[in-house]
Amino acid sequence: MEIASMNNDEKPSNFFTKGLLWFKSLHEKIFAKIVGIAKQFKTIAKDDPRRVIHSLKVGLSLTLVSLFYYFQPLYNSFGVSTIWAIMTVVVVFEFSVGATLGKGLNRGMATLLAGALGVGAHYLASATGKVVEPILLGLFVFLQACALTFIRFFPQVKARYDYGMLIFILTFCLVSISGFRVDEIVDMAHKRISTILMGASVCVIVSIVVCPVWAGEDLHKLVAQNMEKLGKFLEGFGDEIYKSSEDITESKVTKTSLIEYKSVLNSKNTEETLANFAKWEPGHGQFKYRHPWKQYLKIGGLIRQCACRIDALNAYINSEIKAPEENREMIKETSMKMSIECGKALKELSKSMRKMNLPISADEHVTNAKNSAKKLNSLLKSRINNWEEINLLQVIPLATIASILTDIVICVEEIGQGVNELASLANFKTTKSSKEIINTNKVMVVEKIELSNNHVVITINEQNMKL
Amino acid sequence: MEIASMNNDEKPSNFFTKGLLWFKSLHEKIFAKIVGIAKQFKTIAKDDPRRVIHSLKVGLSLTLVSLFYYFQPLYNSFGVSTIWAIMTVVVVFEFSVGATLGKGLNRGMATLLAGALGVGAHYLASATGKVVEPILLGLFVFLQACALTFIRFFPQVKARYDYGMLIFILTFCLVSISGFRVDEIVDMAHKRISTILMGASVCVIVSIVVCPVWAGEDLHKLVAQNMEKLGKFLEGFGDEIYKSSEDITESKVTKTSLIEYKSVLNSKNTEETLANFAKWEPGHGQFKYRHPWKQYLKIGGLIRQCACRIDALNAYINSEIKAPEENREMIKETSMKMSIECGKALKELSKSMRKMNLPISADEHVTNAKNSAKKLNSLLKSRINNWEEINLLQVIPLATIASILTDIVICVEEIGQGVNELASLANFKTTKSSKEIINTNKVMVVEKIELSNNHVVITINEQNMKL
Repeated sequence: MEIASMNNDEKPSNFFTKGLLWFKSLHEKIFAKIVGIAKQFKTIAKDDPRRVIHSLKVGLSLTLVSLFYYFQPLYNSFGVSTIWAIMTVVVVFEFSVGATLGKGLNRGMATLLAGALGVGAHYLASATGKVVEPILLGLFVFLQACALTFIRFFPQVKARYDYGMLIFILTFCLVSISGFRVDEIVDMAHKRISTILMGASVCVIVSIVVCPVWAGEDLHKLVAQNMEKLGKFLEGFGDEIYKSSEDITESKVTKTSLIEYKSVLNSKNTEETLANFAKWEPGHGQFKYRHPWKQYLKIGGLIRQCACRIDALNAYINSEIKAPEENREMIKETSMKMSIECGKALKELSKSMRKMNLPISADEHVTNAKNSAKKLNSLLKSRINNWEEINLLQVIPLATIASILTDIVICVEEIGQGVNELASLANFKTTKSSKEIINTNKVMVVEKIELSNNHVVITINEQNMKL
Repeated sequence: MEIASMNNDEKPSNFFTKGLLWFKSLHEKIFAKIVGIAKQFKTIAKDDPRRVIHSLKVGLSLTLVSLFYYFQPLYNSFGVSTIWAIMTVVVVFEFSVGATLGKGLNRGMATLLAGALGVGAHYLASATGKVVEPILLGLFVFLQACALTFIRFFPQVKARYDYGMLIFILTFCLVSISGFRVDEIVDMAHKRISTILMGASVCVIVSIVVCPVWAGEDLHKLVAQNMEKLGKFLEGFGDEIYKSSEDITESKVTKTSLIEYKSVLNSKNTEETLANFAKWEPGHGQFKYRHPWKQYLKIGGLIRQCACRIDALNAYINSEIKAPEENREMIKETSMKMSIECGKALKELSKSMRKMNLPISADEHVTNAKNSAKKLNSLLKSRINNWEEINLLQVIPLATIASILTDIVICVEEIGQGVNELASLANFKTTKSSKEIINTNKVMVVEKIELSNNHVVITINEQNMKL
């Protein structure tokens, strides 16, 4: 600082203005940064308001647990062990009930088991005398740490009991090694375990009682939402095929909403995590305790497969297809119909899943799409003789679109089967709307709904009726 | 038990044999289970032998840290605080150096900061008197827990500082609340911080010194491997197109090795996690400290895009293409060439990335593939008049394959560009083989290799030469 002021001694005013400017720009930069962070705060809170509630819940639980320290009678019975309750709350409290319960149960069970084993190891070692004791204890610690760390690599263990394994290693070490110094080891283990159990209970109770966030519900919504995204794309793509060459400006507006399907491609991890958490959750709302969460993963996989096909289709969204000729116009129309019917089927499936009703009209849409596919097939089979002077390059994009769409119809049918299986596993309701499907001036009355061999068989009787 | 034995009193021998059989089957079941687990142990260890070493490393670190308890002079200076060293080792020690360093630094920094703030909060609160103190402390705990829990939802924070945030909340609560009961708060904070730092140091040192597992190296290998998988598929697919109708039995054998590419589709999460860990790692082997890990994510994204196209292609692997007619044979041949050249390019890119050499012949393969694509285009442009009596349905699968392959060529070109960018960012070496590309009886001598604007410009001079 001194050197700088000496060098600039000749022009003090210049130096000061520079400094002032620097300070001003720094001030502005900091202000801009703060505004940026505040904006991010707002968007994160707006994206999912449950995040704010979660933060308040954590604060509440910690304050509740810290009461142990402030009240003399509570402190008298547990003493310094109270820190274990605080530690448990900080580490165990997670966003969803399933995650919190999973961690809480893992921590509780692991502490109990490892505590008991640790006490055993301590007594065993102390029986051998003061010289061998530390060696034996060191050996125990080494062996169990190696074995359990390796077991953590097992995929089944990693998915559900990883945290429990960690806590087992920790508790075993703490109890068996502390035992070497603290004489009242059983008392210590008892205090530690009871405070940990108290902390875990506070977490679980607060997370279930105060605005609970259910991982299962999130998974259910996510899968339904993904289905809807694909449905939206397919419906939009159907329109797109037809108007592509005319209103390009408009199509670019809708494109941003069509691109939503991309997020589906990377949803595997989220779905698996949520399913793992959901397995820990008790029954809640529409979901019973042993809700078939596995089926959601199956449907999710099929949806991703479909999204991958759609990604290939997306490359053709702006291919300019000139269709002056009658037959080609026909191809275009049937492709459009396939796309739109698939989209409708997916949207219908998504809607029925959301409301947990039996999907009815989805099968109809799939059948329509399949009929269009058949029509397209026979159209393409017809000898090309009557297509005079054809430029194959003009037909190819259309043919490719048609071909990929045929694959997508198969995917959508499989998704529909998956949802039907889920419906029979989770006993979806039959609603009024699924009992009576009203057509323009006919009423199709559902006579019988049977569940046979994972499929829903619906017998429909068509009756004329005045509207 | 008693009821059962009374009911079966009449046939004691029957009861006993049943019991014996049950016991025998139980025994067999348990034995089968144990054998199953042992087999799983073996496969997990075989899949990645570093897992066994990691388990031993954890055992070693824990045993090292527990020495603090056994030796009187060490125990005298730290006392019960030694448990914090053990806890740190159990929680911080991760599979890769990057993850361990990241957790260690997070824990160390968060403990220091939160410890200092906690002591400050304690003194501030204790100045207000015995009645207000617990209220004020409770308020501090509540506010910081809420704020930091919410900050954990920020994506940038979640990716790299999530663990630090957790430890900050924990330490602040422990220090500020404990201060309410323990009088020598500064001494306690000092002991706790120094033991935690010791535990973290043991982790970091053991993880770097004993057979280190570098997350960066894993990421590097994973991306190269994914590229190779796609290359393998494309090469195999090229062969498949040609022989499809003849040797179906043989094609099914190769199919299992072709299906490998599927794992690429879900590699996003692994790549992102590894990149986050890699950022913590110091320079090692061929990788400098600020290696462009971000570029790997970009290349990974392009590879996944390509894999998605390949997934669409895979649907056609068994489509029976009869090709009696000359022109169609031509389409087939050029498609095959495109696929094989793309495959070669990807394999070449993967190889050069593995060895960190400049990729040279990959560009050549891409150019070949592009030329084939052009040829195919002009072939399809040729009026179809001379294709007499054509059944369009027979051409469509071929045309679709060709169309998807054209997309794949573009993807592969982009991947090549990505690898070239990486090569210039990370200063890949020019090797002998990239200086001289030997053709059948010509030698192309590389005259100049320039790096300009993210692209590698190579000037080649062709010379005749006797081999």
